[in-house]
Amino acid sequence: MHSYFTSFKKAQILDNRYNEISKFLHKTPVLTSNSINTEVGSSLYFKCENFQKSGAFKMRGVSNAIFELVKNRGITKGLIAHSSGNHGQALAWAAKKHKIPCIIVMPENASEFKKKAIRAAGAKIHECESNIASRISSVKKIISKLGFTEIHPSNQPSVILGQGSAAWELLKYCKSHNINLDFIGVPIGGGGLAAGSCFSVAIWNKLHGTSTKVFGAEPTGADDAYRSLKSGKIERNENPVTLADGLRTELGDVNFPLIQDLIHSIYLVSDSEIINGQIKLIERLKIMIESNCSPPFSAVQKNKDDFKGKKTGIILSGGNIDLKNSKWFIENKKG
Amino acid sequence: MHSYFTSFKKAQILDNRYNEISKFLHKTPVLTSNSINTEVGSSLYFKCENFQKSGAFKMRGVSNAIFELVKNRGITKGLIAHSSGNHGQALAWAAKKHKIPCIIVMPENASEFKKKAIRAAGAKIHECESNIASRISSVKKIISKLGFTEIHPSNQPSVILGQGSAAWELLKYCKSHNINLDFIGVPIGGGGLAAGSCFSVAIWNKLHGTSTKVFGAEPTGADDAYRSLKSGKIERNENPVTLADGLRTELGDVNFPLIQDLIHSIYLVSDSEIINGQIKLIERLKIMIESNCSPPFSAVQKNKDDFKGKKTGIILSGGNIDLKNSKWFIENKKG
Repeated sequence: MHSYFTSFKKAQILDNRYNEISKFLHKTPVLTSNSINTEVGSSLYFKCENFQKSGAFKMRGVSNAIFELVKNRGITKGLIAHSSGNHGQALAWAAKKHKIPCIIVMPENASEFKKKAIRAAGAKIHECESNIASRISSVKKIISKLGFTEIHPSNQPSVILGQGSAAWELLKYCKSHNINLDFIGVPIGGGGLAAGSCFSVAIWNKLHGTSTKVFGAEPTGADDAYRSLKSGKIERNENPVTLADGLRTELGDVNFPLIQDLIHSIYLVSDSEIINGQIKLIERLKIMIESNCSPPFSAVQKNKDDFKGKKTGIILSGGNIDLKNSKWFIENKKG
Repeated sequence: MHSYFTSFKKAQILDNRYNEISKFLHKTPVLTSNSINTEVGSSLYFKCENFQKSGAFKMRGVSNAIFELVKNRGITKGLIAHSSGNHGQALAWAAKKHKIPCIIVMPENASEFKKKAIRAAGAKIHECESNIASRISSVKKIISKLGFTEIHPSNQPSVILGQGSAAWELLKYCKSHNINLDFIGVPIGGGGLAAGSCFSVAIWNKLHGTSTKVFGAEPTGADDAYRSLKSGKIERNENPVTLADGLRTELGDVNFPLIQDLIHSIYLVSDSEIINGQIKLIERLKIMIESNCSPPFSAVQKNKDDFKGKKTGIILSGGNIDLKNSKWFIENKKG
């Protein structure tokens, strides 16, 4: 475990930090559905990060990272990240809120929908080639030229800690409603949400004498975390194939040790299971979620016996969909 | 105005009734969006009846109708309605809650999705031919045979009064947040929601000395209310053509006088304006709404100047969508 996390092992310090950053966040609702519970034979509590500012949990990590920057070093010259998705959008909005200049490096072929959202948040877009090498070198160049600070989407300690606030908030909500969660499920992409949840839930368990377990869920076509957990070292996603574009990313050296030590299990779900889960959630909860969101719910649907009669929190990670061009929309057109 | 409404002109009696039926309803949230407000140049408050029990405001009218039946005559032998949509679903759920048998008359070609929802609520489906004459005669036959009580979706006084509770609840919410609404917008189909809103808002205005105005919005392809308001008599929708299938219905002799007396204006919106409004609401609010829902928002988008700088409540009427087969989904496939 990265040394950054040491001081936050004291529950009071962690709670204080989460209270600090909550000023920049929405307190997202927890939804339930009797009909879904009847179908899966257990009780599910959906933490709606699709209603979070910028439409995804990513705002949590970004808020904690910026909070530390501002606190420790004063206002930075600017913030930068390469992202074609929710992290870029969250960073752009948070930077605007703090009146810090922001540049998002995006592949030139990123969708206009995403570019529009980033620009609407007041950030500048720097276009690069559509490969990871070009993304990284573009970021490096801008940093050396402008002295901007990079905020990594999933492998930076402060970002990981921030993501853990969703599970913490869910546990607080459940405690105040006398609900003792057996599990909390999260999707695994880059591993930031999973690692942060593992950490915050472990601290919560120690404080309250509870034993809530975190499980992850990944697309079969991007199963690096599943394989990494088995082999004990970070495995790559050579050619990820999944419609859940936010989950094609890979674990990093900061988040993997937390996941390795603390996660209960990782489930794999196919793209069609992801779509079916997504459609069921949209139809029953009447909320919009993206496909990156549904793996933990799809895992519960697929493995009902593992959760039978239990209480399970599900972190619905985001709801940013370009309805006219989204993958799941296109997939469904064929059906 | 039908004599039924006379006693409810006392605000306290109306409020008491709404409190009684609220026990059978969800208190639905009111959502706002800074980005939408910026775009339209006014402040919008979305009352989310898509989160209502059974997924639509229809549960309100049904709850009031059943409340009166149970109160006045004891448990009825059973409830019946012809409906291929949200009214049938609401009646089925409410009947189940009160342990009253329920039959929904549906055209044989109604979608499996809708039939499934009705059956899931424990009601029996009686299939009839796909025309209004067959629907009505089927209901009559069952009533004469079984002595069931019909609950009409939009032209029954108790149903209309119940629908008015959504606007009343919205006004209460706004008052407690120091928001003085200039307008409340509703879609117009059969006219029950519009008439109920007109009535409850008028009573609210009298009580509080406010002047909130109700406006309706209809598809251009089913503009009977717009034409009726002009001509001063109920006009028919001979061949309604709109993807908003819940708005193809016509006004009735109980709801029209209320609308005629009390509504401020009726806007017309095209199907493409309806879809664009629907997509914007889904993308920004991250909630699922049906196309029947979006006309009042589409009307604000289209007529920004009429609402400039004002505060407008919008009743989002429902969120029941068969994602794989819905009209707007299919429309978008072509786009």
